[in-house]
Amino acid sequence: MQLNKPYLLFLGASQSMTDCKTAAGLRDWCRDDVMGQMGLPGCAVDLRLPWYRPAEAVAAGARSFVIGVAPVGGAIPMEWRPALLAAVAAGLDIVSGMHTRLASVPGLAEEAQRRGCRLLDVRHSDRTFAVASGVRRPGRRVLTVGTDCALGKKYTALALTSALRARGIAATFRATGQTGIMIAGAGVAIDAVVADFVAGAAESLSPANEPAHWDVIEGQGALFHPAYAGVTLGLVHGSQPDALVLCHDPSRRCLDGFPEHPIPSLESAMSQYLTAAKVTNPTARFVGISLNTSSLDAESRRKLMASLTEDFGLPVVDPIRDGAGAIAEVMAAQFGPDNAP
Amino acid sequence: MQLNKPYLLFLGASQSMTDCKTAAGLRDWCRDDVMGQMGLPGCAVDLRLPWYRPAEAVAAGARSFVIGVAPVGGAIPMEWRPALLAAVAAGLDIVSGMHTRLASVPGLAEEAQRRGCRLLDVRHSDRTFAVASGVRRPGRRVLTVGTDCALGKKYTALALTSALRARGIAATFRATGQTGIMIAGAGVAIDAVVADFVAGAAESLSPANEPAHWDVIEGQGALFHPAYAGVTLGLVHGSQPDALVLCHDPSRRCLDGFPEHPIPSLESAMSQYLTAAKVTNPTARFVGISLNTSSLDAESRRKLMASLTEDFGLPVVDPIRDGAGAIAEVMAAQFGPDNAP
Repeated sequence: MQLNKPYLLFLGASQSMTDCKTAAGLRDWCRDDVMGQMGLPGCAVDLRLPWYRPAEAVAAGARSFVIGVAPVGGAIPMEWRPALLAAVAAGLDIVSGMHTRLASVPGLAEEAQRRGCRLLDVRHSDRTFAVASGVRRPGRRVLTVGTDCALGKKYTALALTSALRARGIAATFRATGQTGIMIAGAGVAIDAVVADFVAGAAESLSPANEPAHWDVIEGQGALFHPAYAGVTLGLVHGSQPDALVLCHDPSRRCLDGFPEHPIPSLESAMSQYLTAAKVTNPTARFVGISLNTSSLDAESRRKLMASLTEDFGLPVVDPIRDGAGAIAEVMAAQFGPDNAP
Repeated sequence: MQLNKPYLLFLGASQSMTDCKTAAGLRDWCRDDVMGQMGLPGCAVDLRLPWYRPAEAVAAGARSFVIGVAPVGGAIPMEWRPALLAAVAAGLDIVSGMHTRLASVPGLAEEAQRRGCRLLDVRHSDRTFAVASGVRRPGRRVLTVGTDCALGKKYTALALTSALRARGIAATFRATGQTGIMIAGAGVAIDAVVADFVAGAAESLSPANEPAHWDVIEGQGALFHPAYAGVTLGLVHGSQPDALVLCHDPSRRCLDGFPEHPIPSLESAMSQYLTAAKVTNPTARFVGISLNTSSLDAESRRKLMASLTEDFGLPVVDPIRDGAGAIAEVMAAQFGPDNAP
């Protein structure tokens, strides 16, 4: 799935920044690809981007109208219909991460066909993939994995991509979820793939590359998650990661939304991820720990990071505060030119 | 997916029993649900069932026309079209485990609609499932798991269901693959479910039941399989098995079709399955080992089974030779009325 940039970000009639997490993420992670924002009457959010209507945005070069707001329930409100029709009439592709498909909006598919625009439901997967081969391919791969869902795997992968590039190391962010796909302009919504083909889809997401090139793959779910672990395992196997980064939120005791499922120790999590990763890459290893420390005061944060650094002998970062440079340094040292495969 | 029985088994113009594995499995495992067989001119296979044409089969009570042959490539040959149309014209549902959908046969969907018959592609999943809850539900569950694909997980589950019932223990076979679904007349093609919902689909496959009732769930894939492990893990988590049976073929050194992936030791396999199963059922345990000993002579077979029995302290059976009674006995003892949950 390849998206056309630049984007016009649609905020609907949002009342809170929380609802506009997707739009804010796009602004923060691919600012150069974002032309502006558009709201409906009553919208209380302002991302401090230029305001555009669809026709003006097209005149200024925009290619896609991106739904940057997630209303509760995941359905497309009927109040959006005129804006969606106007966007397509102006010649913009529509990009949506909603559960409801864009084609379910009355008249939108017909208008898109008439105008030659695409309706892109990035949460869905309409491609077919091959069954995974398990065969190794050139290029290096690092995968962010987690002790739970929604604790920074995408953010860590993006920060690590930046940190590698800042050190002159070729790196490509590989998106596996809808916001990541919008940021990268490409990717595979891995949890929407038919189960038999998840590892195959992951193989296709990070194809053969230059030996020293890094694919930095956005992780999904958790290996011990009662609902999503199958997605995680297929992604681990198909990614064939040389390196893994464990993402963790020390404030969580249980999996989010699953109060009967405690989060395992970091040792146990790492051990399970390594067992899984070694199925397709026997030299897989952890190269860092990425913490979400937003719940900690400065002293608790310092203590925790020092203790984890000592326990695991790995760099420990909070990517929002520190970036991921310390992890990139370890990768450069362990996989540098002197350690070419 | 609920299939209508009894079945008329379609053999096409098969030249070998190997191609008719599905039909032979149905004859062996649900003989009472099989009314007869039908071949095309040139068919060299005879399952020793009554021969019927569709209209005659309907007159005798048949409800579904089941494609019991798997041609190389998985596509539906055009030579079958007249027989499929005749079956629908006679009022039979068509049941297919092929990759190609039945609706791709020109005119078949229209004829089915006209006659009020169903075209059932059991390899595909057109249902939607909820995300898994991870919440325990009443009833007992045993899952067959394997050291590879295609080494007896379905056969073991069927044999175990029979063995439990023979001992007066309520048990239901729960099918997760196309042949199993045809045998049971119901089930979920678990590898065809969208990845996010695999564990949820597995939860729905073995719903809450009487506390002493056993669901005997057909396993799929293997936890360390580079292509299919995600399916396996989701199935393990959603099944919440109280008991596991490890299926193994001692003649295999590597995963079938993956020569670079050796089969792990039984200890390692069991340990990985238990780690996975304990995510949703902390008391999960192995209750037996099921061997495919077709490659062994009598002496090697006896030695291997004795040594595994000693090593693991579990009953070891070849279900084709011995049935699964020894495993059912262990289950009855460990989970009997004195051990009610």
